Amino acid sequence: MIAFSLFETHISSLQQQVEQALSQHDFDALLIGSGHTKKHFLDDTHYAFRANPHFVRWVPFLHESADCWLLIQKGKKPALYIYAPNDFWYQSTPLPVDEWAGLFDITLVTDPAPALMTQENQRYAVVAEEPLHNFSNKFECNPDVLLNTLHFDRAIKTSWEIECIFRANCCAVKGHAAAKALFQKSIVPSSESSLTERALHNRYLQATGHLDHELPYNVIMALNENAATLHYQHKSRSPLPVARTLLLDGGASYLGYAADITRTWSASAVDMPQAEQAIATVFAAIVKAVERLQLSVIEQIKPGLDYIELHRLAHQYLVDVLLSTKLLAQCPPTDEVQEVITRTFFPHGLGHFLGIQTHDVAGFQQDSQGTVKAPPASHPFLRLTRVLEEGMVLTVEPGLYFIPSLLEKLRADAAGSFVNWDLVDQLKPWGGVRIEDNILVTATGARNLTREAFALLDAN
Amino acid sequence: MIAFSLFETHISSLQQQVEQALSQHDFDALLIGSGHTKKHFLDDTHYAFRANPHFVRWVPFLHESADCWLLIQKGKKPALYIYAPNDFWYQSTPLPVDEWAGLFDITLVTDPAPALMTQENQRYAVVAEEPLHNFSNKFECNPDVLLNTLHFDRAIKTSWEIECIFRANCCAVKGHAAAKALFQKSIVPSSESSLTERALHNRYLQATGHLDHELPYNVIMALNENAATLHYQHKSRSPLPVARTLLLDGGASYLGYAADITRTWSASAVDMPQAEQAIATVFAAIVKAVERLQLSVIEQIKPGLDYIELHRLAHQYLVDVLLSTKLLAQCPPTDEVQEVITRTFFPHGLGHFLGIQTHDVAGFQQDSQGTVKAPPASHPFLRLTRVLEEGMVLTVEPGLYFIPSLLEKLRADAAGSFVNWDLVDQLKPWGGVRIEDNILVTATGARNLTREAFALLDAN
Repeated sequence: MIAFSLFETHISSLQQQVEQALSQHDFDALLIGSGHTKKHFLDDTHYAFRANPHFVRWVPFLHESADCWLLIQKGKKPALYIYAPNDFWYQSTPLPVDEWAGLFDITLVTDPAPALMTQENQRYAVVAEEPLHNFSNKFECNPDVLLNTLHFDRAIKTSWEIECIFRANCCAVKGHAAAKALFQKSIVPSSESSLTERALHNRYLQATGHLDHELPYNVIMALNENAATLHYQHKSRSPLPVARTLLLDGGASYLGYAADITRTWSASAVDMPQAEQAIATVFAAIVKAVERLQLSVIEQIKPGLDYIELHRLAHQYLVDVLLSTKLLAQCPPTDEVQEVITRTFFPHGLGHFLGIQTHDVAGFQQDSQGTVKAPPASHPFLRLTRVLEEGMVLTVEPGLYFIPSLLEKLRADAAGSFVNWDLVDQLKPWGGVRIEDNILVTATGARNLTREAFALLDAN
Repeated sequence: MIAFSLFETHISSLQQQVEQALSQHDFDALLIGSGHTKKHFLDDTHYAFRANPHFVRWVPFLHESADCWLLIQKGKKPALYIYAPNDFWYQSTPLPVDEWAGLFDITLVTDPAPALMTQENQRYAVVAEEPLHNFSNKFECNPDVLLNTLHFDRAIKTSWEIECIFRANCCAVKGHAAAKALFQKSIVPSSESSLTERALHNRYLQATGHLDHELPYNVIMALNENAATLHYQHKSRSPLPVARTLLLDGGASYLGYAADITRTWSASAVDMPQAEQAIATVFAAIVKAVERLQLSVIEQIKPGLDYIELHRLAHQYLVDVLLSTKLLAQCPPTDEVQEVITRTFFPHGLGHFLGIQTHDVAGFQQDSQGTVKAPPASHPFLRLTRVLEEGMVLTVEPGLYFIPSLLEKLRADAAGSFVNWDLVDQLKPWGGVRIEDNILVTATGARNLTREAFALLDAN
């Protein structure tokens, strides 16, 4: 359990933030719904519940409870309505008795759209996917002006939130360690492996203690060339005769806060068939080089740094990686040509904000009014364009992939003449590399929550 | 692989059904969408995809593919548009090369709302959750009259569908066997067990080879008193010091068709602490008696039988079970009093249709026009009110539970005087029993797909 005082401070700063936001936008109160369970089309089964992130931020302990409502009013204890029907079909959320419950005025209700203790002549903002059916016109649903302010505030994490993200990291690294062990155990020299992505995923779930829907995002468990599909969405049942690469982009959740970690492991040369031993050595060197690149980038992080510049820096470093691993035969003459090449091998953004959402809110937002800075036109997938501040949590996740469709384009381009295509073709069956850590921006630099979590795991 | 001829016949009977339904309701063609992936509120992560059941019925092999469309026209091969964007983020559905693909005119499209080969002056019905954005007014979305006809047709399964449901059963029984083995292994006499519902669930997934979202419905993995919550939705992380009961209501999916099986196991008297040995014997006898009841009910099944009558028969048999297990001290004098009692111990319906959907469509529907017969007022949770016909597939799942809220009502009622409350109170920690099989109505009786699947598993 995290020290209660951290949660207490978290709630009092949220109260302050919301009161200020309400005044600014001329509202008297904010009503937040935890969300409703969605049904499958024409069916009575339903999708796994996912709570409204604004609700989770206030009531993380109930992040699995649908149909709850939170009413925040100026100068009052927040009122929490917990949906608890008299039902013998489902187990209802019980009245919480833990210390956190003392920070709320709690009512158990049997109606998912309960009568709320509202007042006449007040203006209410609602943040909820499904409006309550008894809303009168004094309720305004999901007003952009207010959401912009709330989202901008969320970019700076409270100590409670940082601790939650750290604990999510501590959980995720257990899954990474377990999957890595299974991957390495499954590489049996000169005999067929029976390793499947599905078995690796099952091991990951077991080690993290998560059910699939409790994970913050769909785990990427990519063997061999599947590592070249950036958001590879399957978990194949088919065993692979030769296991070369495992790219694992897997998170975990702690009270609704996410970890988002990627590691890439590859088979050792000695375990590969004779014909693939040389290329195995090359790929292992690429994995190491990407990791060094990642750590060098992280070293630059401190308040005041523009994340777009960090992303560009990663591309510059990548030129060195491509040269040192001989993927480039010679150094391209101009920055433009260099970027055409590096964007082929590293087409996604360097990272993004992390919090309750995996791609957390406000990555483009420059102020509380919602002014947005888009990513540079040549780097359209970058999700974070802000100048860093103390208390931000973000990912740093450079990659180097062998993506056939992008490589074909490069091969047809003048810039392609600098590339060692023979080596590239040999590396395609290895898919690619990504190394991703979760970083807290501190007053003077960065705290690497992921490496800390791995170190703790190793120490125990 | 199921024999291709079964699928061929399946598709040609669907073509016939749809052509007839289109004529009947004055449409020229039917367009079916596989469905779109839904995003979480204010987020870019998404819910696990679940395909439109009408699409699955035609194209079971693509039941995991979003944004596909099927156009069925009179006298033509159905046209299948498979969404396959040029994308390095996700792995696209490849052009199918299997035999089934020959039954469709297939086009790969890069637009989730593709231009369709439609004709002027034709009237199109669409069955899809999200209408295509380029629909003109010659498309009518989800018309009730047509849906009623399609749903009514779905109540009678083709041989292909029956084989799919049987194979789903063959898969689910592996999960049941694995969970049962773990449950029984975890009962260590006179020492604390560390068994959790989560560990049992993980084992279930492993044995069935399913990811959570691939299961037809949320598995109920209920230990001890949790077995008394009918749709118990959690998988607790907390180990239970004493494992008494495991109620497992778990299915599996084969090409989009569901199995829905429940078994209940309990700790043997010899493995229980001294003080609980006697009651363990009683509970084990109750489990056996419910299973005998279930098999007796199934024996009655044949075409022409009204399922409401079968449900009532189960309640009559339950009186005998309650008497023989001494839960009733004496036989209540009237049917009314008996039912007040049996509905307390067995509050849900005897079963439901099974197919692509776990609670398959048309359970209340008496004809293709959509005439509905509601369940009897005193049995509001019964989901099947039809006279049985050859080719229907349904569940038979009687139960006997110790549900505190319902028991308190009965205790306060005059009917409560017949109940052995001392025994009931001792049994509450054991939760309850449900035994559920999947049954095909044949020309002369019933084929028990679940018992067949268990027998096959035991034989191998």
